[in-house]
Amino acid sequence: MSENSNIDNYLEKHMDDSIAELSRLVAQPSVGAQNWGMQECADLVADMLRKRGFAVEILPTGGAPVVLGERKGRVNKTLLFYNHYDVQPAEPLELWETPPFEPTLRDGKLYGRGVSDDKAHITSRLLALDAFLAEEGELPCNVKFIIEGEEETGSLHLPAFITANKEKLAADACIWEFGGVDHREIPMQYLGLRGICYVQLTVETASIDVHSGQGGSIFPNAAWRLVWALNTLKSSEEKILIPGWYDEIIPPTQRDRELFEAQPDPAQEYMERYGVKQFLKGMTGGIDLQMAEVFEPTCTICGLTSGYQGMGSKTVLPAKASAKVDFRIVPGQTIDRCLKLLRQHLNTQGFEDIQIEFLGGGPAAKTNPDDPFIKLVVDTAEEIFESKMELIPMVGGSGPNYPFVHELNLPVATAGLGYPDTRAHAPNENIRIDLYFKHARHMARVLAQFGSMA
Amino acid sequence: MSENSNIDNYLEKHMDDSIAELSRLVAQPSVGAQNWGMQECADLVADMLRKRGFAVEILPTGGAPVVLGERKGRVNKTLLFYNHYDVQPAEPLELWETPPFEPTLRDGKLYGRGVSDDKAHITSRLLALDAFLAEEGELPCNVKFIIEGEEETGSLHLPAFITANKEKLAADACIWEFGGVDHREIPMQYLGLRGICYVQLTVETASIDVHSGQGGSIFPNAAWRLVWALNTLKSSEEKILIPGWYDEIIPPTQRDRELFEAQPDPAQEYMERYGVKQFLKGMTGGIDLQMAEVFEPTCTICGLTSGYQGMGSKTVLPAKASAKVDFRIVPGQTIDRCLKLLRQHLNTQGFEDIQIEFLGGGPAAKTNPDDPFIKLVVDTAEEIFESKMELIPMVGGSGPNYPFVHELNLPVATAGLGYPDTRAHAPNENIRIDLYFKHARHMARVLAQFGSMA
Repeated sequence: MSENSNIDNYLEKHMDDSIAELSRLVAQPSVGAQNWGMQECADLVADMLRKRGFAVEILPTGGAPVVLGERKGRVNKTLLFYNHYDVQPAEPLELWETPPFEPTLRDGKLYGRGVSDDKAHITSRLLALDAFLAEEGELPCNVKFIIEGEEETGSLHLPAFITANKEKLAADACIWEFGGVDHREIPMQYLGLRGICYVQLTVETASIDVHSGQGGSIFPNAAWRLVWALNTLKSSEEKILIPGWYDEIIPPTQRDRELFEAQPDPAQEYMERYGVKQFLKGMTGGIDLQMAEVFEPTCTICGLTSGYQGMGSKTVLPAKASAKVDFRIVPGQTIDRCLKLLRQHLNTQGFEDIQIEFLGGGPAAKTNPDDPFIKLVVDTAEEIFESKMELIPMVGGSGPNYPFVHELNLPVATAGLGYPDTRAHAPNENIRIDLYFKHARHMARVLAQFGSMA
Repeated sequence: MSENSNIDNYLEKHMDDSIAELSRLVAQPSVGAQNWGMQECADLVADMLRKRGFAVEILPTGGAPVVLGERKGRVNKTLLFYNHYDVQPAEPLELWETPPFEPTLRDGKLYGRGVSDDKAHITSRLLALDAFLAEEGELPCNVKFIIEGEEETGSLHLPAFITANKEKLAADACIWEFGGVDHREIPMQYLGLRGICYVQLTVETASIDVHSGQGGSIFPNAAWRLVWALNTLKSSEEKILIPGWYDEIIPPTQRDRELFEAQPDPAQEYMERYGVKQFLKGMTGGIDLQMAEVFEPTCTICGLTSGYQGMGSKTVLPAKASAKVDFRIVPGQTIDRCLKLLRQHLNTQGFEDIQIEFLGGGPAAKTNPDDPFIKLVVDTAEEIFESKMELIPMVGGSGPNYPFVHELNLPVATAGLGYPDTRAHAPNENIRIDLYFKHARHMARVLAQFGSMA
């Protein structure tokens, strides 16, 4: 296609400008957890869209604002890009080779906090749009952006925002904020995200800690109350013991299973990367491991804290104890029902004293692997990545895709510039410039084809 | 007795000097758990004894050194004082009204870490000795001090030290490191101490933490392993579930029970002081509560630590988790057997991966309430405290009295300057100056009478 070569030429010529724009964006801190630079970053992103002729709004949510942008194109079909401008905290700072908010290019990579997750996805997509505007004077289709500022802190206000703004967000398909290649350099299409219901469980048994010599036989102990309560949540055979927890689960399809069967066994790589000797429930790898990894609900203790935690011994009977618990939920499960079942279960088990604080989350959602839009995204990737994009029906991680799939009724495709050593959420986060270019080319093809789809 | 008035006059005149000496001692940190200032504090205590003409040795133990002091007196009978120069960690620092190692006098109290437990006991006893040396030129009897540096961390090396130094420690009676008045201002004679077996349980399931979205269904979780293992140790009905745990217990005597029956019900005071609404096992107070408090073995979680413990949520699957567990043991139970039963139990329950680290302890021991030395200590207290000292057969707390009672064959009497709001082990630890003076007067009478006992 001659358009492709014009477009590709434009992209190649303007790579340096785009990386410079990305660097300015990364240099603007926007750490949601620390409420640092959020409005400034939203303003910067809004300006970047306005420069491309988008109609832009910065809308309040109750938390960090959402940036909405819209520009009409050649045909009346709308592609919605979901991105986020917030980033993870950069700590621990001492592990960064160059400062996290001073983006640095070396060895074909750009380093900086948020460069991969998710700022480079924003600017490489804008570069693809620039190519059409410069070479063809218009976009191949209508394009909308929703760029939120709370992705890294659980997208607490996004679902309600989407429900309240369904008209403005109406579209025909959605490109998700992330994507990329696996360790074989094969581009992956992640079709679904597991849901999450993250809670803190806290119990307080006294107003002050008691000497454990005096109190051990007669006073309630917050740490024990917590241990006993947690123990009722999941058996050592990994079964969640909360009545009704599994009742409304929609099981994976035969097609989901087939897609995983086509994937290589991840067991060996996991064992080496994490230094584990075995998997749960006697699993050794293969399809059982792959299916369990994403289609089973989890109850993970992410943190425990109580009493004395220093060196040596301290004889104290703790007045307070708490646990962070991450319930991953699968299709069919809802946050409201999970929180209700959890509360009921704790009460039934005699743990009315355990307080539940909801720290964020949302249900699971997945896109049909046979949706024509998925086929378009997959097909357009092949020439660029020189290998066929592979389909993964669901990943174990979570994100706010549910309202896109079930409220806006969109097929949601992933595409991006990630790769295994991109270090999202970790020190020395980076992108590969070659993958940045590939993502811009991929997006240009998606836009062109989408504009010409029947 | 005219001696008493000379001695009392001396004590009164030299109170300020003694408090100044105490302040210097408290200003020297000696936090065993943090290995902070131990040698310096041992040296300081040794100097304080040398100043009084004691022959002093600082002896290695494998842990913090022991300070031994000896000075002959008028008659050839030996009173042994057991004290310790180590203190509890001062954390949480933010709850102190004045810095823990800057002793501060206000409202008739001296505040500082270790002031009550146990540094004021050392200096007030030295003040009593000073009075005899100044007024009479000699001590009424031989006096020995054993001042150890590991009491707050379980006296790990003391029992072996005593066994190896029985000759040097030979004596006729022992005054323990603590004592004091209860909330009615009545002086108490604590005749026995519960034993303790303090362990850290640790489990490691991977070399690094895993993202909980990815790992929750497939990787072992150290925090869960720990919760499940702990849950097998004690039921929520407070029964220790380790087979054999209760088998060798020697039950309390009828005399023990009678002594407690003579005591007021502590229930109301405990509820108010600690802000608890109920006691364990439905106990409401009275003799059941009093007997349970000291004659039942306990399994207390003193601390829990694993994974993310900061604000908000972090989606991590912890590779490591640990708990501090304080088992109080009663007469008949031994450390070796308890550790063996614990290991066997964890193995039987499938928790071979839980590591047990013994952090210190020793068995329970008690002195005969009808020993003549106990009568001497009790009788001499009456004039000073203006009420009769009451006998408590055992307390819930622990200390290394076992080798004093069973190796050195000494009657061990408690006497001291404690009171209910002394806040040992807690922020704002303090002593009352009036009780400091009373303790010095009491010790002076004990020394004088002991020297004149048949």
